[in-house]
Amino acid sequence: MFNAIVSAGTLRTALDSVSVLVEECKLHLNDDEIAIRAVDPANVGMVDLALSADAFESYEADGGVIGVNLSRLQDIAGMAGSDDLVHLELDEETRKLHISIDGLEYTLALIDPESVRQEPDIPDLDLPAKIVLEGRDINRAVKAADMVSDHIALGVEEDAEQFYVDAEGDTDDVHFELDTEDLIDLTVGPAHSLFSLDYLKDMNKAIPGDAEVTIDLGEEFPVKLHFDVAEADGSVTYMLAPRIQSD
Amino acid sequence: MFNAIVSAGTLRTALDSVSVLVEECKLHLNDDEIAIRAVDPANVGMVDLALSADAFESYEADGGVIGVNLSRLQDIAGMAGSDDLVHLELDEETRKLHISIDGLEYTLALIDPESVRQEPDIPDLDLPAKIVLEGRDINRAVKAADMVSDHIALGVEEDAEQFYVDAEGDTDDVHFELDTEDLIDLTVGPAHSLFSLDYLKDMNKAIPGDAEVTIDLGEEFPVKLHFDVAEADGSVTYMLAPRIQSD
Amino acid sequence: MFNAIVSAGTLRTALDSVSVLVEECKLHLNDDEIAIRAVDPANVGMVDLALSADAFESYEADGGVIGVNLSRLQDIAGMAGSDDLVHLELDEETRKLHISIDGLEYTLALIDPESVRQEPDIPDLDLPAKIVLEGRDINRAVKAADMVSDHIALGVEEDAEQFYVDAEGDTDDVHFELDTEDLIDLTVGPAHSLFSLDYLKDMNKAIPGDAEVTIDLGEEFPVKLHFDVAEADGSVTYMLAPRIQSD
Repeated sequence: MFNAIVSAGTLRTALDSVSVLVEECKLHLNDDEIAIRAVDPANVGMVDLALSADAFESYEADGGVIGVNLSRLQDIAGMAGSDDLVHLELDEETRKLHISIDGLEYTLALIDPESVRQEPDIPDLDLPAKIVLEGRDINRAVKAADMVSDHIALGVEEDAEQFYVDAEGDTDDVHFELDTEDLIDLTVGPAHSLFSLDYLKDMNKAIPGDAEVTIDLGEEFPVKLHFDVAEADGSVTYMLAPRIQSD
Repeated sequence: MFNAIVSAGTLRTALDSVSVLVEECKLHLNDDEIAIRAVDPANVGMVDLALSADAFESYEADGGVIGVNLSRLQDIAGMAGSDDLVHLELDEETRKLHISIDGLEYTLALIDPESVRQEPDIPDLDLPAKIVLEGRDINRAVKAADMVSDHIALGVEEDAEQFYVDAEGDTDDVHFELDTEDLIDLTVGPAHSLFSLDYLKDMNKAIPGDAEVTIDLGEEFPVKLHFDVAEADGSVTYMLAPRIQSD
Repeated sequence: MFNAIVSAGTLRTALDSVSVLVEECKLHLNDDEIAIRAVDPANVGMVDLALSADAFESYEADGGVIGVNLSRLQDIAGMAGSDDLVHLELDEETRKLHISIDGLEYTLALIDPESVRQEPDIPDLDLPAKIVLEGRDINRAVKAADMVSDHIALGVEEDAEQFYVDAEGDTDDVHFELDTEDLIDLTVGPAHSLFSLDYLKDMNKAIPGDAEVTIDLGEEFPVKLHFDVAEADGSVTYMLAPRIQSD
């Protein structure tokens, strides 16, 4: 059983954060939240989304799992204004999701959850450095790095108490640093890892400019990016595996 | 003889409503209005436009007929701001149209009207259902249907007093219904016909969101869409032939 | 030695005016200004840019010459808001340009000035007609001519005291004229020359709509277009060779 009403804006934010990595996913319709975990086909980027029942106008669910095509669902949500309400109701018999938006009814065929790529175990890492910053600074770093390279190093300068981003191109380099004045918070620790810029660009697309993003970082370890959505009634965690340092 | 002055906005609205169906057309320069009738190459969609002399700042004509390339004329009108005046003057001798916009003079070569596809006879149908609604609701229906299918059914639910739109895709369906509260007016009658979505999408492009559109509908009959332009000094009627119901 | 701070807006305006003609250029880092002269590969269009030290927040230079890839430098300047300051510093040893924008550091590899196409001698022509007009009128003329032709005639009607633009297409023509009321200033003289529209379109892209542009014109002679940038602390002169009149 699943019957819920949510604003189109909240639904879109949630879907966007997952669709930057995968095209299909499983939705766990838990009794207190919708949960999605997914990993991209190359097993490099993962997302863990939870959208609490509090983010909904009304919410009833009993723990079922459905498989959905995200771009279909995004297209439908895109038919509504941000504040319009979207009514989602699962038809258990036909295994279709009925979606209503102000007189418009869309019947979405679901995907067999068994056919969706298996959900990742998101490892519980103890990463030594923690950086809290605004989403727009991640955007700036990613855009700058993209001018010169297809990978990006994130690290912490422990003595100077700085978070830095490095990108080395064939001829040009980019270096970006933020100190404790620019950051919301910083816990220093040994941290320097190289990542594929493509993945970070995709994740960046889903990070609002005014979001407070927490980055957990280590030395040649995966990075975790965490931020809240839906006025803190939802949360998104990305994890990205490091690239082997080439030099 | 043809010598007229009209705002660029009015001229563009009129041209746009025809150019969604055809690239060339005949303009009947009647003494009280400009009239255009045209049918698309596949003979499926027709347009009937009348723009009264009242829509012009000044208007003189004596019943001539000229052939024009619509996209040329649209490009020229596009050089002006919406409120700028466009002066149109026919040179009978050279068979060219002189178009002036604030110091800019464009000399447009006309097309031999004989070489333009013949104008359709727009059949005088007695369609049993009449739906009056806002242009934006047509837009919404067309966009929703376009997510799942390339054809669209329009119909009236007589008992429930509803106008509905149905689109059936391979896996997903869209159903949109508007009752008398959502509609401006409704005359019920037996009505259900299937149409090519491509044509309706093209016609929809020319329908302003705030226009009051009258739809005349029957059972497996053509549909007529009618709306006013140029502050009611002009009117557009589209007619679209039905597709044979495939199921 | 070169060490300067300038607003991103001013830097972008200067770079844009040159990049419409060439991809690489030499920057003369004179002690009182940055100067760029360049000619396009076909030797048809030239640009002469001077950006005075007064256009900078701070400026130190001693006459060196560096070669730069303009689109790289534009991309970097594009990372900043218009009012953000860009700090440029030349590293003489590595021959790299360090560019800083609010915490972001970009290291730009320079190009050997010897490998950049040789700078043109901009001829000192005594052209009989001078037209001073707003940039937006040039834009209007160029857009109108582009509808019908790939070349454009500029000229002065001496008796009528008008500046005119003519473009003749295969079937359609455009004529645009501005009299002394429309122009800021006009010095009449024998002037009529034909130009490639492609070049004028490129130059037009770099001319602000509200710029006061001075056009020097003769009979089958090159045209000069001159306008100020950076609140008159910089100036741009384009010169465009005429096409041979074909008729």
